[in-house]
Amino acid sequence: MAAVSDPTETATAEGGARQANQAFYRALTGLDLEGMDALWLHDARVVCIHPGRPALLGWEAVRDSWERIFAATRWMHVEPTNVGVGILGEMAIVTCWENVTAQADEGVGIASVQATNLFRRVEGSWRLIVHHASHVPLDATPSFEGEPQ
Amino acid sequence: MAAVSDPTETATAEGGARQANQAFYRALTGLDLEGMDALWLHDARVVCIHPGRPALLGWEAVRDSWERIFAATRWMHVEPTNVGVGILGEMAIVTCWENVTAQADEGVGIASVQATNLFRRVEGSWRLIVHHASHVPLDATPSFEGEPQ
Repeated sequence: MAAVSDPTETATAEGGARQANQAFYRALTGLDLEGMDALWLHDARVVCIHPGRPALLGWEAVRDSWERIFAATRWMHVEPTNVGVGILGEMAIVTCWENVTAQADEGVGIASVQATNLFRRVEGSWRLIVHHASHVPLDATPSFEGEPQ
Repeated sequence: MAAVSDPTETATAEGGARQANQAFYRALTGLDLEGMDALWLHDARVVCIHPGRPALLGWEAVRDSWERIFAATRWMHVEPTNVGVGILGEMAIVTCWENVTAQADEGVGIASVQATNLFRRVEGSWRLIVHHASHVPLDATPSFEGEPQ
């Protein structure tokens, strides 16, 4: 924990985690399974939750889901905004708003998605271990307002 | 990381994280703000995402949301099932299916919610740092089936 009390060290860690988060959305937009392979930790403890779906546990199930999503998608553009990063030792908690435009067989769709991405620093690289994405109404604002549902 | 390679140590950590997860759902069912106070890490980096809502960042905003939810709810019962726990050093990644029955002003409702709960071990206690909850269809199964949306 000593390292994270150093502001310079924390800033460097935040920058690295932001870059890893960008790499995730580049892989998503590029329908790039190899990009996902490089970014995710290949471990039985990783978790991925696609919008409206139950949790997938373990890299094998997670990779299989990306393969199927990419196969079913003609093109996709995902622009992350409102990116927040918190560093806790060797973990980075990243939250962002995913602005998604995608074409699948049934046509073009847009969506606003709230994501939590958790990265773990392994041998100097930030590897994705949790991705939880959930729909929010298109007319919502990224900041919290009003009564929770 | 040495500790987590010890199976006994990992089993103990898993047990502790499961107990902390149970404590979270007891606090939720009990509309117990003090229980939430005791469980969450009081830190600017904590994250809470209620179903269909944007992220709340920092303990102050998170606590305020629980206070408002509890004030607006007459009673609530939340039964976690399909609990999965992964230990990574001082972090525990817990996924579960929340079976929610609640009465608010507008009547009784039931919901199925997929949650990711992330705990960090601080001075021997597992403290909640991320709660991300998202609706899944009531007729879905907790295991992943079919094409992702």
